[in-house]
Amino acid sequence: MTGHGYLIAPWELRWRGLDIEALQRTESTFALSNGHIGLRGTLDEAEPRGLPGTYLNGFYEEHELPYAEGGYGYPEEGQTVVNVTDGKIIRLLVEDEPLDMRYGEALEHERVLDFRAGTLTRTTLWSSPTGRRVRVRSTRLVSFTQRAVVAIRYEVEPIDEDLQLVVQSDLLANEPIESETKDPRVAAALDAPLVAEFSEAQGYHAVLVHRTRASELRMAAAMDHQFDVDDGLRTRIAAEDDLARLTAAADVPAGGKLVVTKYLGYGWSAQRSIPALRAQVEAALAGARKTGWQGLLDEQRAFLDEFWDTADITLDGDDELQQAVRFALFHVLQAGARGESRAIAGKGLTGPGYDGHAFWDTEQFVLPVLTYTMPDAARDALRWRHGTIGKAKDRADQLGLRGAAFPWRSINGAECSAYWPAGTAAFHVSADIADAVTRYVNATGDARFDAEHGSELQIETARLWVSLGHHDRRGGFRIDGVTGPDEYSAVADNNVYTNLVAQRNLVDGAAAAERNPEVAARLQVRPEEVRAWRKAAENMVVPYDEELGVHPQSEGFTEHPDWDFAGTPAKNYPLLLNYPYFDLYRKQVVKQADLVLAMHLRGDAFTPEQKARNFAYYEERTVRDSSLSACTQAVLAAEVGQLDLAYDYFGEAALTDLHDVHNNVRNGLHMASLAGAWSAVVAGFGGMRDHGGVLTFAPRLPGALRALTFRMCFRGTRFAVRITPGEATYERIAGEDVELTHHGERFVLGADPVRLPVPPVDPGPPPRQPEGRAPARRTGWTG
Amino acid sequence: MTGHGYLIAPWELRWRGLDIEALQRTESTFALSNGHIGLRGTLDEAEPRGLPGTYLNGFYEEHELPYAEGGYGYPEEGQTVVNVTDGKIIRLLVEDEPLDMRYGEALEHERVLDFRAGTLTRTTLWSSPTGRRVRVRSTRLVSFTQRAVVAIRYEVEPIDEDLQLVVQSDLLANEPIESETKDPRVAAALDAPLVAEFSEAQGYHAVLVHRTRASELRMAAAMDHQFDVDDGLRTRIAAEDDLARLTAAADVPAGGKLVVTKYLGYGWSAQRSIPALRAQVEAALAGARKTGWQGLLDEQRAFLDEFWDTADITLDGDDELQQAVRFALFHVLQAGARGESRAIAGKGLTGPGYDGHAFWDTEQFVLPVLTYTMPDAARDALRWRHGTIGKAKDRADQLGLRGAAFPWRSINGAECSAYWPAGTAAFHVSADIADAVTRYVNATGDARFDAEHGSELQIETARLWVSLGHHDRRGGFRIDGVTGPDEYSAVADNNVYTNLVAQRNLVDGAAAAERNPEVAARLQVRPEEVRAWRKAAENMVVPYDEELGVHPQSEGFTEHPDWDFAGTPAKNYPLLLNYPYFDLYRKQVVKQADLVLAMHLRGDAFTPEQKARNFAYYEERTVRDSSLSACTQAVLAAEVGQLDLAYDYFGEAALTDLHDVHNNVRNGLHMASLAGAWSAVVAGFGGMRDHGGVLTFAPRLPGALRALTFRMCFRGTRFAVRITPGEATYERIAGEDVELTHHGERFVLGADPVRLPVPPVDPGPPPRQPEGRAPARRTGWTG
Repeated sequence: MTGHGYLIAPWELRWRGLDIEALQRTESTFALSNGHIGLRGTLDEAEPRGLPGTYLNGFYEEHELPYAEGGYGYPEEGQTVVNVTDGKIIRLLVEDEPLDMRYGEALEHERVLDFRAGTLTRTTLWSSPTGRRVRVRSTRLVSFTQRAVVAIRYEVEPIDEDLQLVVQSDLLANEPIESETKDPRVAAALDAPLVAEFSEAQGYHAVLVHRTRASELRMAAAMDHQFDVDDGLRTRIAAEDDLARLTAAADVPAGGKLVVTKYLGYGWSAQRSIPALRAQVEAALAGARKTGWQGLLDEQRAFLDEFWDTADITLDGDDELQQAVRFALFHVLQAGARGESRAIAGKGLTGPGYDGHAFWDTEQFVLPVLTYTMPDAARDALRWRHGTIGKAKDRADQLGLRGAAFPWRSINGAECSAYWPAGTAAFHVSADIADAVTRYVNATGDARFDAEHGSELQIETARLWVSLGHHDRRGGFRIDGVTGPDEYSAVADNNVYTNLVAQRNLVDGAAAAERNPEVAARLQVRPEEVRAWRKAAENMVVPYDEELGVHPQSEGFTEHPDWDFAGTPAKNYPLLLNYPYFDLYRKQVVKQADLVLAMHLRGDAFTPEQKARNFAYYEERTVRDSSLSACTQAVLAAEVGQLDLAYDYFGEAALTDLHDVHNNVRNGLHMASLAGAWSAVVAGFGGMRDHGGVLTFAPRLPGALRALTFRMCFRGTRFAVRITPGEATYERIAGEDVELTHHGERFVLGADPVRLPVPPVDPGPPPRQPEGRAPARRTGWTG
Repeated sequence: MTGHGYLIAPWELRWRGLDIEALQRTESTFALSNGHIGLRGTLDEAEPRGLPGTYLNGFYEEHELPYAEGGYGYPEEGQTVVNVTDGKIIRLLVEDEPLDMRYGEALEHERVLDFRAGTLTRTTLWSSPTGRRVRVRSTRLVSFTQRAVVAIRYEVEPIDEDLQLVVQSDLLANEPIESETKDPRVAAALDAPLVAEFSEAQGYHAVLVHRTRASELRMAAAMDHQFDVDDGLRTRIAAEDDLARLTAAADVPAGGKLVVTKYLGYGWSAQRSIPALRAQVEAALAGARKTGWQGLLDEQRAFLDEFWDTADITLDGDDELQQAVRFALFHVLQAGARGESRAIAGKGLTGPGYDGHAFWDTEQFVLPVLTYTMPDAARDALRWRHGTIGKAKDRADQLGLRGAAFPWRSINGAECSAYWPAGTAAFHVSADIADAVTRYVNATGDARFDAEHGSELQIETARLWVSLGHHDRRGGFRIDGVTGPDEYSAVADNNVYTNLVAQRNLVDGAAAAERNPEVAARLQVRPEEVRAWRKAAENMVVPYDEELGVHPQSEGFTEHPDWDFAGTPAKNYPLLLNYPYFDLYRKQVVKQADLVLAMHLRGDAFTPEQKARNFAYYEERTVRDSSLSACTQAVLAAEVGQLDLAYDYFGEAALTDLHDVHNNVRNGLHMASLAGAWSAVVAGFGGMRDHGGVLTFAPRLPGALRALTFRMCFRGTRFAVRITPGEATYERIAGEDVELTHHGERFVLGADPVRLPVPPVDPGPPPRQPEGRAPARRTGWTG
């Protein structure tokens, strides 16, 4: 067992014992989701608990955003994910004593998240305060194959004596939760957010329909139950506004077992009526009952087998990271698998952090993983963006711009950022979306998506950039007064990351208009418009500090005062909680990879020498107060040959949530960082790049490992790359021949594995980090 | 009569007739104040009304500042000026009909603000709905000589028949007012803000004591009355929590007169008890009664005679501006005369605009006027700043800086700005204060103030700058990421205005430390610290665009896109209501003089050629959405010889409130713009500068005038400068010989007037302004 409480195992996350203090963070790590429904890993009996949470992707409440000093174009409405009707509650009475982990004694207690089964299992051997012992085993799944369905198998076994057992199975709306907000209007919006519209209960079945007050979204939750043995069972069901409850009582002999299977159906809609929504969730229940518990388990495992066959990563030599990287992939899959034209939020559906909003990191951190491992999920996430393009065009119009300006943070596509210097000004989000389209279309050849959604996204975002930038007196195309990825700088001129992703956006937009002339015609793209995009791209200003031989993150950055790292005590991190923005913005201190991220995603715009110098320069100034940094630093560290450092950053990214590096896992997992663990492996040690549509690799094995294998899918071909000391082996798993590049040399991967040597590298001395901010060295687990 | 409703006259502001729609703005222009008490010019009978207002300088309520997304160092508490107990209400019943201008008929109605008497007089001949006619005349003054005292003479005369008259004289607390705020917490704080603590009434006298809920400030208001004839008078007095009322009834014969004099005493304290505060206002009343109505009138006139003798400006050839400039001087005097260590707010005490906060414009626009016309008032305003130095040092500490960081907006000295890019980041406010100290000490030789207050202000602000800026690799001293005066740019590097006022601050701080070694010792100033200030000043970076031959307002400014003025319809001004900050900040569009203000206040740092080029460059980009711009543009237009343009800007500045140029006079007057009218004359046409302690002039007469005379006071010598075509005459009024400079030539002004020729100037073609933003041409009133 590690110091962080989880047992190390290759295909599961296991927590033995019961630590009530750790409940809140483990509710996040043990969360189940299929991208449509999310359940935090709370105990079946609902209490003790950290923070209960049942989420439906896209289901939110609105509230006014307050401004002491307002401004034109400030969003007036905020959106917050809502904790919906909780159907996972199953309470147990043993004789007349409620099973509650705070009373009696948990002689055994274990929770296991199984990455191949797709289930959360909890087992306990509990002795009641009067000494009656029962064994309880619950297994929970959120179905990947039936997206509206949750199923729970709940088993109770008296150990020493015959016992009367009472099971209470609930649908509970408006669970009281403790809000962290200081804003009374937000708190009011989230205090009992659901208005009851309909309830009904009969037999083993009940349904509740609710809607939100301000956003006027409607949701329904239904439950049904099966008992292995109905004989001698006394049941009662009742429904009121916010509660439906099935109560089942049985006398169970010692060594016998009470087994109940609970099926839940969930749905929501902004449009559908109460009867329609009720019908929808009851239909889902009918499907689930027909499939049955074992059927759902089998489907779940088959779905995951397919996923792991495309996506698995094996590390030979580091068991903890082996577990962590599969944990990461499993949760990224859960966040995106069945979102189906809804957003992938920053926390997935694992907690209420960031109000349930989606950010740019979906496109630049999460979608790369899905693009190469589960491309349909990447496509669906981009279809969500496309579905919000009307709002993005309205926003551009409101801001005096053309094309589409996608929001910094949102659930429904409308901008919800109340602090524009770190929100609206971060226009790169629109180029990030265009970039994700390019990556997805290139990796899949999905011409239908391209024509129906992708090209329009690329064209409307290209339009944004020509209206946002301007040609200066020397002809250079400048983009002034915007904010790049690094949130410790804001509103600067010619942010290199922004300018380079905008440049690609402009080129790709032009290509899209030519590739899909009917789309271009529908969007009234004129030839001179496309020429203007190309001209802007060709003349894009990329500032460079000749004297220092590095790229300033934005114009003037390298002239700014250095941050006093030596005078900054460890307790003052994250800096934003202890220093004003004004001080952070004006100094050379970097929250998260910005120029370094540009070197990853636009590596084609830098020479190897520039990469090495830039990497060293920004290493000294990057504090990683964001979870969006370590993975990118891993990728670039690997590229410049600093493989040990890359490995340390890989470890930090992969363990962000398991080690609770940022001390906020209680509010949900960091999807981008989990996805970044994949990037650290595939783009870092694998050296995978897809600049300009060509898939290239530059594999190198870090010293900590004996071997590393990753799998991916490109244009329908599934293949594995195995890196061992001094060489790499490419092996096709399924599909056609594919042309790849290894350390600059092209080759065709056919039926036979291809073994290629890895050229040596001499990276020179390792760069330094700010005092106290070096990543933890991964020596303990090194093989 | 002008189109704006006021009659033109040299020494008064007169409004004939009654325009209820115009009440709110005329309540501001007809406001009376002595810098301690402010009364808006509401009608005696309180209704109809625009916005009632009775203010005590420094008396405010606190409220939480809401942030949808908070940040470290954001101020948590806002402050808002409170409408205190209203003592100016006198209601009249004519027989049984209340005098109300909305009923019956006002056969005559006139209000006159008399700049020499210091009174607001209102006369009406009113016919009641049933045809009973009375003449009412009220005269109101806020005493300059007895700062806690207000007095009102109220006279009623039946015209046609004997009438029973009932006068009701009130003290009314918690008047309901319509708040413009959208924030429910601010509205709650200002809805009935006063908690009753004490009330008492007896004879003709009453007192009410209240305190505010959150800020816990206590205030008292007392009233007393005298009647010319007590015979046949039936009176009754009563007091409840929020109302004290004297009711007096009399039968008055036709042609007879009921005359009542009402004395009011006001006071507030954060410390004093209820009995102490009551005693204070009753003592004030006793003094007022002893002086009597005529005595107060006499004192008021004597005070103003003295002021006009030092401060008057005469324009020969423009009657409207003659009136406007005296109106301006009168209100600047009212704002500052008896503030006595309280702030001079942006609106003075004329309305609730800007929440009653004081800004940097006090030091850079208002105090120059007072420094040269009523230096004690300038001193007192700077003593207020000194009184808040503890808060400014705490704020600097919170921001990670040294020395004192004065607030962007405040009533009590604590930062209240909820939007840091245009608040806290505008650090120049601290240098503006230091500059005002230098100006005051130089103009008065007040060594005692210098030792007790001034040097400390200069030293602590010098400390701020060395902690805020840094020496770059080439040794230049940069100040990055701050906001200059122009509010359409923010958070930029090396704002020229900021760097130049900081440079002066550093030099002056060093001089202060050497001039007052005991102050330096007390503040633990080390010699190396002073050397660091001088080194920073010597190496101050002042960006210059060699290619364009102009100074960029801040680094990079001249590279930014131009604003699309041609595509901006007139209705879209002010721009900040129709365009987002992000768009304004990143483009070459200037709300208010910034680099141009630097050329005024630090004219010694620019060559004449630079001034001409810079002025033309920024004229094309300055939209004057701020009232802090026209006056400065007038000053620089005059300096570069564009005298007609200077005159137009002078007109705009002087008429800002009388013409309601910014459509917000209802919330109070623009003190800085009114003060700017003086600057346009004295610094503009008079060419007065005080760089480095030498008082210099470069007088030039604009073509619109036959002559222009202004008066001022320098080191105890009072003198006048009269400008006529081709020459200027300097004449001493009182005091010692004084050395002055006229167009570069030094001379001594003694007992005899000095006549000197004005050299000709050829300014070249006039610069252009953005489309539709040229100032109104003042041809109509040209002599």
